[in-house]
Amino acid sequence: MIAAQARAVFSPEGSFKLTAIERRDLQPHDVLIEIKYAGICHSDIHTARGDWGPIDYPLVPGHEIAGIVAEAGSDVTKYAVGDRVGVGCMVDSCRECEPCRHGEEQYCLDGNTGTYAAIDRYGQYTQGGYSTHIVVNEDFVVKIPDGLALDAAAPLLCAGITTYSPLRHWGAAPDKKVAVIGFGGLGHMAVKLAHAMGAEVTVLSQTLNKQEDGLRLGADHYYATNDAETFTKLAHSFDLIINTVSAKIDINAYLALLALDGTLVNVGAPSEPLPVQVFSLIPYRRSFAGSAIGGIRETQEMLDFCAERSIAPEIEVIAASQIDEAWERVLASDVRYRFVIDIGTMNNE
Amino acid sequence: MIAAQARAVFSPEGSFKLTAIERRDLQPHDVLIEIKYAGICHSDIHTARGDWGPIDYPLVPGHEIAGIVAEAGSDVTKYAVGDRVGVGCMVDSCRECEPCRHGEEQYCLDGNTGTYAAIDRYGQYTQGGYSTHIVVNEDFVVKIPDGLALDAAAPLLCAGITTYSPLRHWGAAPDKKVAVIGFGGLGHMAVKLAHAMGAEVTVLSQTLNKQEDGLRLGADHYYATNDAETFTKLAHSFDLIINTVSAKIDINAYLALLALDGTLVNVGAPSEPLPVQVFSLIPYRRSFAGSAIGGIRETQEMLDFCAERSIAPEIEVIAASQIDEAWERVLASDVRYRFVIDIGTMNNE
Repeated sequence: MIAAQARAVFSPEGSFKLTAIERRDLQPHDVLIEIKYAGICHSDIHTARGDWGPIDYPLVPGHEIAGIVAEAGSDVTKYAVGDRVGVGCMVDSCRECEPCRHGEEQYCLDGNTGTYAAIDRYGQYTQGGYSTHIVVNEDFVVKIPDGLALDAAAPLLCAGITTYSPLRHWGAAPDKKVAVIGFGGLGHMAVKLAHAMGAEVTVLSQTLNKQEDGLRLGADHYYATNDAETFTKLAHSFDLIINTVSAKIDINAYLALLALDGTLVNVGAPSEPLPVQVFSLIPYRRSFAGSAIGGIRETQEMLDFCAERSIAPEIEVIAASQIDEAWERVLASDVRYRFVIDIGTMNNE
Repeated sequence: MIAAQARAVFSPEGSFKLTAIERRDLQPHDVLIEIKYAGICHSDIHTARGDWGPIDYPLVPGHEIAGIVAEAGSDVTKYAVGDRVGVGCMVDSCRECEPCRHGEEQYCLDGNTGTYAAIDRYGQYTQGGYSTHIVVNEDFVVKIPDGLALDAAAPLLCAGITTYSPLRHWGAAPDKKVAVIGFGGLGHMAVKLAHAMGAEVTVLSQTLNKQEDGLRLGADHYYATNDAETFTKLAHSFDLIINTVSAKIDINAYLALLALDGTLVNVGAPSEPLPVQVFSLIPYRRSFAGSAIGGIRETQEMLDFCAERSIAPEIEVIAASQIDEAWERVLASDVRYRFVIDIGTMNNE
């Protein structure tokens, strides 16, 4: 086994502790990655705290991983020692079902293997990126292009691909009007990406607090959803709405903002159901959809797209000792716009 | 004004009475249609009984109209006296908004003008097809091909186009698996049309009571939804599900039957909202959508498609004096599969 250091939680409400973990010995197609940076995603908190169901502890979260290949298994062909690489929300899938064969491993019919809190094909409980090393099959590793800094690249592995994939799937492009609900970690990436794809971008945020940032980062318009006038003014306006908010929203009010054949896509999932009035959908052939991250091929495409256009998330780099505090700030929406852990500080007090 | 005879209701719970109504004098682009047959749609009942909001009385329902052009206005170019024609759910729209300009008048941003219970551009309350004559602008009239009998053609103007349009829009074709929820007036048309488009068709009905009909009319499979096994067996199976049921269903159970990138389209609308679990949508990038009838151009396309392939609804022709009884049978789902009023019996006791 390969020894690694990690920051783990030991109970749903527990704080982080430095701990030793083991990674599996390299299988022929595995690479050992020395992790340099790991982004903090709201999902880490939901999972660790059991919001999405009970899990096993200790848990090392983290599925926005950027690092360097430290060792390559005997049959690895895609990567070599020293390569700058990333790992996102999944580390394996069945590879045989139709979605897998089409490069949509995130929709694997057997369920993809999550980067943490999942049981992998070796029967081991997966542990994520808040750690110094990780062992991943090369097919679930992506290359981080030279143009992208490793710290800023980390959040692209979840926040980036989660917004890129639906924007591509539903055709964000010039002459398309795209709205983004929520302007946090995912929301600000959605704005940057949709803008880079040429769409006219509108932010729908609770208040105008972050309006200046929104317009600076690529939004053409910024509206407060605590102002009822917003919903009157923007009725049947958008071809695509990306909802990055996991809390329960008045879904029918937002569906009414879709133009003919428009789609509202949830990339986050509230635990409660959303009461959809079918009369919100029928009059303009609207759709309400969901989307999960993206496939490995598409994740690579997204990284290359970001490198070519110098797109990167706005990040605040923290030390490993600051994770607890950072989580509290994520829960308070007090982050502009993504925390990234400097894994080099792993052993610091 | 042009005198016509009609069957009207005079209150939400009232029964039909023979009454005289007036149609407007022909405008330059109007045609006067001598109605031969009118289909009975569940919407007629919902509207007349105020289920979808208060309306004015007396009301003459009917938006599945087949007849013969009796007179043409001075500037009419599309039709001539003697032509076999149809009128569906709308008789006008703004003609200027983007949906109208794209031939999707059903999604007119000003709201299309319903064939009955609407106020038209002349300020008159529209009255529908349970009558001997109707005056309609030629742009909202379609030609009934010679291959289609007038009585069987009538239900195509609503039940036909309402199912044809989403099947076309979401790509029913060979190699596609299409399910139809409900096997009534709309459902049996969805089965016939999807089968004619080459799709593999599955009926999802409460019971197996109509299984024999379903298989005879084009379904490849027929399942009972009162059997929980159905939902296990058919999990992530379908590319497209057309929901023809207006009652509240367990929407998440049906969404789980969609394959990757599948869409469930409601063509009827329950008055209560449907509680959608976003986790029903995200795992396979599923969509929940709505669709309303079809545009005029597409309605003509559908009629031509049906004529070429000898597709027609299963109908039971009734006399005008039997409408009350037919409505009760519609409410009891006791019709195989569409009632059509023989307007020639209008004055009979």
